[in-house]
Amino acid sequence: MTIQIFGISGLPEIEAASDLGGMIAASARKQGDPIADRDVLIVTSKIVSKVEGCAIELADVEPSEFAMSWADTWHKDPRVIEIVLRQSKRIVRQSGPVLIAETHHGFICANSGVDQSSSGAEGRVLVLPTDPDASARALRSRFAELGVDVAVVISDTFGRPWREGQTDVAIGVAGMHPLYSYIGQHDPHGHEFEVQELCVVDELAAAGELVKGNVSRVPVAVIRGHEWETDDAATMAPVLRDPQRDLFR
Amino acid sequence: MTIQIFGISGLPEIEAASDLGGMIAASARKQGDPIADRDVLIVTSKIVSKVEGCAIELADVEPSEFAMSWADTWHKDPRVIEIVLRQSKRIVRQSGPVLIAETHHGFICANSGVDQSSSGAEGRVLVLPTDPDASARALRSRFAELGVDVAVVISDTFGRPWREGQTDVAIGVAGMHPLYSYIGQHDPHGHEFEVQELCVVDELAAAGELVKGNVSRVPVAVIRGHEWETDDAATMAPVLRDPQRDLFR
Repeated sequence: MTIQIFGISGLPEIEAASDLGGMIAASARKQGDPIADRDVLIVTSKIVSKVEGCAIELADVEPSEFAMSWADTWHKDPRVIEIVLRQSKRIVRQSGPVLIAETHHGFICANSGVDQSSSGAEGRVLVLPTDPDASARALRSRFAELGVDVAVVISDTFGRPWREGQTDVAIGVAGMHPLYSYIGQHDPHGHEFEVQELCVVDELAAAGELVKGNVSRVPVAVIRGHEWETDDAATMAPVLRDPQRDLFR
Repeated sequence: MTIQIFGISGLPEIEAASDLGGMIAASARKQGDPIADRDVLIVTSKIVSKVEGCAIELADVEPSEFAMSWADTWHKDPRVIEIVLRQSKRIVRQSGPVLIAETHHGFICANSGVDQSSSGAEGRVLVLPTDPDASARALRSRFAELGVDVAVVISDTFGRPWREGQTDVAIGVAGMHPLYSYIGQHDPHGHEFEVQELCVVDELAAAGELVKGNVSRVPVAVIRGHEWETDDAATMAPVLRDPQRDLFR
């Protein structure tokens, strides 16, 4: 089995309410790589945020006292900090200029995923899609209308504890279960596997990044040849560790 | 640019001091996919441990009092726990039956990477290679002797905080720098990128897992078409976050 990974480039400028699925399909056709049945599409969250209007004008934001004081200490824009706080369910660590938060979805990442660099305009920031699983399902449905059966992973770039360098991970999924389980299977010596579950969607997101490069010039990667079982009820929920089971909150 | 990923299977049983590079090259030829210049080889640490004799007979291990008492509480083999402790520089979390440790290399993972399931024999466990960067360099050199210029990533399967499911990450590298830096680059709007460094070797390891499946039936993945700059001095050191900069120790 050989897996192929390639990027889709040449998407037109994306605006709120654009037909993202149609644009991806058209760009793929134009570059001679039409999206095919059983492809997995890895879609950078930034373009999903743009389509869904998840951009906030800084001029419209009134920062709180807390946002102002911390922004002042660390020479940050208090309006951006205010948006980060509003996107957060909980601050996990706030140390020096670093702010690690749990987003309303339950993802833990720097600045709650608020992105100042990719908004496409000065004075505006992008926030993560409100419901990235729903975004993924909408794209999968749009491709079904176009006659193509694809799984969709919405990806973002997160840091992690202990290891330098960020990697792309999944924040939304449609069509396939996010984890692959070995639970109950045994190796040839009768031991249960030490590896119990692989987070396949995170591995797909990471693999997609290899052809995307950063900064959304190639905002979509196609992974072809990866076998997946259809699961129309799939969401990222099983990837969010129960806080009771988490030693690093 | 299209990246191709495929597995190398059909390796003979691996024993201490086997010519691993020669075996990988021969198996690749036999399956009609000879290793080519500029391929990246993702090699599961288990087979490297076997070649390097990193197997420990449980019968030879005298557990400490501490190992015995904790193993007793959690119904574990005290000799395995003793090996985990010996492989550890420091215990990061010990909670319920879970033991997260920092290995002598500086990696943080469950059970210091001690693997009971893949040793190939009852009563024996595998530990991580002593110096996985050196293991990767030896493989890269062996391929150079065979006339092929490859980068090598030694991979293992680690859990992570906050997210369920494990993913493959790099624990050793040769030939290419482990991180790709955007530092000092600017987007079209003049903002510095929020993403500063990508951990490309972890993304390559994750991508390789997609064709390896677990349990070493396909212990090597070839990633073809990924561009990398040669760096003969590369090691994993830049990926190990300075404890001073780590909020989750």
